[in-house]
Formats: sequence, structure tokens, C-alpha cells
Amino acid sequence: MSTRRKIVLRRRPVGAPTPDIFAIEEDPIPTPEEGQVVTRTLFLSIDPYMRGRLADAKSYAAPVPIGGIMEGETVGEVIASRDPGFAPGDVVVGPRGWASHLVSSAKFLVKLPRGGAPFSTYLGVLGMPGTTAYSGMTDIGRAKPGETVVISAASGAVGSVAGQIAKRAGARVVGVAGGAEKCLFVQETLGFDECIDHRAVDLDAALNDACSNGIDVYFENVGGDLQRLVFTRLNPFGRMIMCGMVAEYNDTELRPGPNLMRVVRNRLHIQGLIVSDKPERFAEWRALATPWVLDGSLKYREDIVDGLENAPDALIGILGGRNFGKLLVRVGADPK
Amino acid sequence: MSTRRKIVLRRRPVGAPTPDIFAIEEDPIPTPEEGQVVTRTLFLSIDPYMRGRLADAKSYAAPVPIGGIMEGETVGEVIASRDPGFAPGDVVVGPRGWASHLVSSAKFLVKLPRGGAPFSTYLGVLGMPGTTAYSGMTDIGRAKPGETVVISAASGAVGSVAGQIAKRAGARVVGVAGGAEKCLFVQETLGFDECIDHRAVDLDAALNDACSNGIDVYFENVGGDLQRLVFTRLNPFGRMIMCGMVAEYNDTELRPGPNLMRVVRNRLHIQGLIVSDKPERFAEWRALATPWVLDGSLKYREDIVDGLENAPDALIGILGGRNFGKLLVRVGADPK
Repeated sequence: MSTRRKIVLRRRPVGAPTPDIFAIEEDPIPTPEEGQVVTRTLFLSIDPYMRGRLADAKSYAAPVPIGGIMEGETVGEVIASRDPGFAPGDVVVGPRGWASHLVSSAKFLVKLPRGGAPFSTYLGVLGMPGTTAYSGMTDIGRAKPGETVVISAASGAVGSVAGQIAKRAGARVVGVAGGAEKCLFVQETLGFDECIDHRAVDLDAALNDACSNGIDVYFENVGGDLQRLVFTRLNPFGRMIMCGMVAEYNDTELRPGPNLMRVVRNRLHIQGLIVSDKPERFAEWRALATPWVLDGSLKYREDIVDGLENAPDALIGILGGRNFGKLLVRVGADPK
Repeated sequence: MSTRRKIVLRRRPVGAPTPDIFAIEEDPIPTPEEGQVVTRTLFLSIDPYMRGRLADAKSYAAPVPIGGIMEGETVGEVIASRDPGFAPGDVVVGPRGWASHLVSSAKFLVKLPRGGAPFSTYLGVLGMPGTTAYSGMTDIGRAKPGETVVISAASGAVGSVAGQIAKRAGARVVGVAGGAEKCLFVQETLGFDECIDHRAVDLDAALNDACSNGIDVYFENVGGDLQRLVFTRLNPFGRMIMCGMVAEYNDTELRPGPNLMRVVRNRLHIQGLIVSDKPERFAEWRALATPWVLDGSLKYREDIVDGLENAPDALIGILGGRNFGKLLVRVGADPK
């Protein structure tokens, strides 16, 4: 086992990505230098933000270079280490990439406890998406008892946690998701007060019914029509947590946005959120939420695809909402 | 002198207000009831937000009723009082209306010191507009040394103070105003680093020149093209203080706004501001800024129109940027 498989970016997409922008290649498994660790990958995380990394546009992170390994969070088992903090057999999570084996500086890795929450959860409910939901609701949303909170992409990795945090805060929580099965999950399993199936109903009328007192907090993951319809319902002092706009990521031209007069009149607070700006939130959230995962009170759902080679298709799918829950690619078996 | 003159709203405007939506009427000078004070008016404040009070639309304050006295801040001299806190000869400021004499509950009035700053300043630099600038820059803008701050309506009552606060914080301050005379005032008297004359230049090119490092803070008073051009230049962690959009107040249909993807990518913070939400800020600002007004280090300019009957035309003018500095209507002479 001296070679690894990796997925590299061949070219940048125009509009919706197609599988042929990626290629699967083999090369030798790297050996660690001083301060580095080599792992075999257990899980890759697939997240909508990755669409941004494919583009050449200036953004909060540099784009993936052409010919480079596609970037993303992974969980892996250490197989070689030249850092005193890590030993073979340790399981770690970190921002890495789409490959069966990876080498990284040890400083980007966090060691995971054995016998606690499943390793995969450190990519979802306890990882970047869960921390994003926590940071957004804590720093911007601040939902109060009696307020109405709308969560887009409510069955997804971020939305599912954001809504459960709002429920714990005593708010009335309305999810929006695509399809009856997702909506059932959002209401029955996650415990949101309502869930609107944006594929089945007249969104405008459904929002009137579900949010008869207006909307105080909107957790924005999707953009598009839903954003427009929520915006005009935002109450005085409403907050809009701008986490993502996945419905517009494949657009080649920007759509018009909402007229901002309502921001003045209603003293709205609209703020963008990239969780890596607040790295301290990760450990904070893991400490807070791990007991909730272990006692079953914080619900989550994983959508696991097998095989590194299926990662490109998984990413294409998440941009159209094809996943159901936190999307992961299983690359290797959990360690014994 | 047992009658007063007052300006009442006859009907609601569609688009730009015309003088005939107002009427001037006479009725008896009111007498105070328990807890009330009667004043003769020295100055009315004319402010762009008043356009909102003419409309029937739901906003942060109830609209002026048809047949009612047009509302606004005034400075007046007490001529009769049935409240122990006020006596004839006291000069007071408060949210009142367009009339030569007014009766109010004493609790809405603030007594002004004699021999300090001119009474008129309590409607401008030391009043609602100054406090708005202070609150916006303190609670939302938080300009830091080296940052670029853009101030729209820079020679106006709010913008002139907002920019001077940003200069005191060590930021590079770029004003935008209409006309060479205003721009000269903004640079030479107020001390902004630059001022763009939006009537004379290609705004896009001028912003490129003046803001070569992008824009960190935007104090929004106008909306329209300037908003669009500033928005696409907002840096990571940029702040947008949404105080007003006077260029769009007479619109009968909302214009499209900016696509909010940039809010996510650049973690922008956009927040609406109505200063009456934070009443404690008024006294705070008066205490902070009065010494600066007295020592001449905080500059201001007043645009004074004589005669109550000219208030409607003054309001129509301010919506088109016809004023130069804080717009006031002088209704009566300062007390001896």
C-alpha cells in the first residue's frame, strides 16, 4: 500500500459543476516531515461552500489551484507522525482534502476521543456545520422565547442544528426544506414547530400561515425566492444570519437582491458568517454539544456515500439539495 | 396673541410631495393641563425622515394623521407650565410639530442651558442628527485607524458629524455630496480627506480613485446609485450603517437592491438605525459633544429658512438635496 488515490481539480466550472472538472489520480503516499502527520482518510465532508473554492473569484479563502487536491474537512487515522502530539492509531479531524491519504502540519489537526461520539459527527453536528449553526445563532441570531425563527435548508447539516438551538432558546421554529420526507424529519425528529416543503406549496401563502406574527430571525442557507419572501416579513429588529445562498451558487450572473429601505425602517441586522473567523467557537461547541449528542437530545442525520470516487457527484448533488442530512463520503473503514 | 399658526397635513403625497398637501391654519393657543407645558416655537427641524411620516405605510413611527399638525423636533420657549420642572422663559427641545405654539407633556421635553451652545444646535449637531451620527458610528461603524469610511450626504446634518467622528477615530474619510460648494465645505471646513461631487463626476471612477483600498465603513443616507457602487467595494468585515435612503424616498416602487452573496463572502454587517430606539444616547452625545461645539473643534453648518409658512417648501427641498447643512425653519426670535 504505497500509493494513494486523490481527486484533483482539472478546470473551473461555469455554472453547475460537472463530474469532468475533476480527475482521480494516484501518487505515492506522502511521508511526514518534522511537525507533520500522515493519515488514512475515514470520511470526507461534502459542503455547499465548496462551490466557492472551485471558482477563481476572490473570496474568504483562496480557490483550489488547478491540478491541486480538492480541499475539504476530513476525519482520518494517523499512520505516521513526526509530531509529538500525534501517534499512529489516533483519529483526527482537520481542513484537508479529497484523498485516501493526506499529509498535514500537525497544528491544523484536532485529536478525537475514542469511545465518545461517532467519528463522523466531527464533520457534521459536532464539526464545522454544527459550529456554524451555533456561532450564527449565538453571535447574530440570539433568538428569544416567543420569537419566530425561520431556518432554510432545515434538514441539512447546518439548518438542523440551528433550528434545534433556536428551540432550546424557546423560539417558535419554522423550517423550510425540499420534499415531504425531509419535512417529516424536520418536524418529527428534529422537533421544529413546522416545516414548509418549498417544492410542494405556494411559499408565499405557506409563510403567511406559518409566520403570522412575522419573522424575527432568518438563518439563510439558500438565497433565491425564499430570501425574497422572508425579507419582506422581517419584523422590527429582525436578524438575518447570512451563512450561504446555495440556490445561487451556480449562477453566472448575480440576481437582484432586496431593497434595503426595510433595513432602515425595521432596524434589521444582516450579517455574514464564516465560522473559521472564530476558531475558538469549535472547541466551545464540541464541549457544549457532545453531551447532547451522547444523550440523544441533539438530533442529526447523516447521508453517507461510499467511495472516494463518488465525491464529485456528491458535491454536484448537494448544490441541488439531493442529499438528506449531513453529506459524507466514506473513504476507509473506522479503525478497530 | 391668543391664536397660533400651525401647518397640517391635508393629504398623503404620491411620489414627490407638493406644497398643496399641507395647509396653514389658525386656532387658539392651547392652555396647559396638569403635567403639560406650552411653548412658543423658535426653530423647527427639517429632516429627510419626515417623508416617511407623510406616508400611510407601517413604519417605526405612526404616520401623521390627515388634518393633524405635521410632526417634528422643535426648540421653543416656555410661556406657560403646569409641570414643576419647567417655568416660563425656559428653552426646551423635544419631538413636537410645525406650529408657532405647542402644548406637550413635560416628560418629552429637555431643558436647554442658557449661555452655552446656540439653541439651534440642539436640533442639529447636538440634537437628533448629531446623536444619530454618534450612535451609528459607535454601535455599528466602529471605524478604526487606517480604515476607509465613506459618508453619503456628507455636508448634511448627520453626515457632517459622522465623518468628523470617523476622523477623530483615525480613519480615512471620503465624503460624497452634491455640488462643488458642498464638497469644498466638506474638505476644507469639516476636514474630510476627500469629497466626491456626485453631480460632477463619474461616481464609479471617483470611488476607485478615492477608495483604492476598498471601503470598510459606509454611512448610508441616500441609497440609489451610490449604495450600489459602494456595496461592491465593501471590504471583508465591512459595516454599513443604514440610516436613510433619501434618494429613494419619493419612489413609488422599490428599486432592486444588492445581491447579498457579498454579505456572506465578506462577512458584512448591515444594520438599520433609528436613534429614538436608544434614548440614552441623546444625553450621552450632548455631554460628549457640547465642549467640542463650544471650542470650535466640531464643525457644523446651519441652513436657516425664515417663517413657519416656508416649512413645506423646505421639506420638499431637503428631499432633493437643496439644503446646505442642517436645515432649520426660524419661527420666532430667540428669547432675551
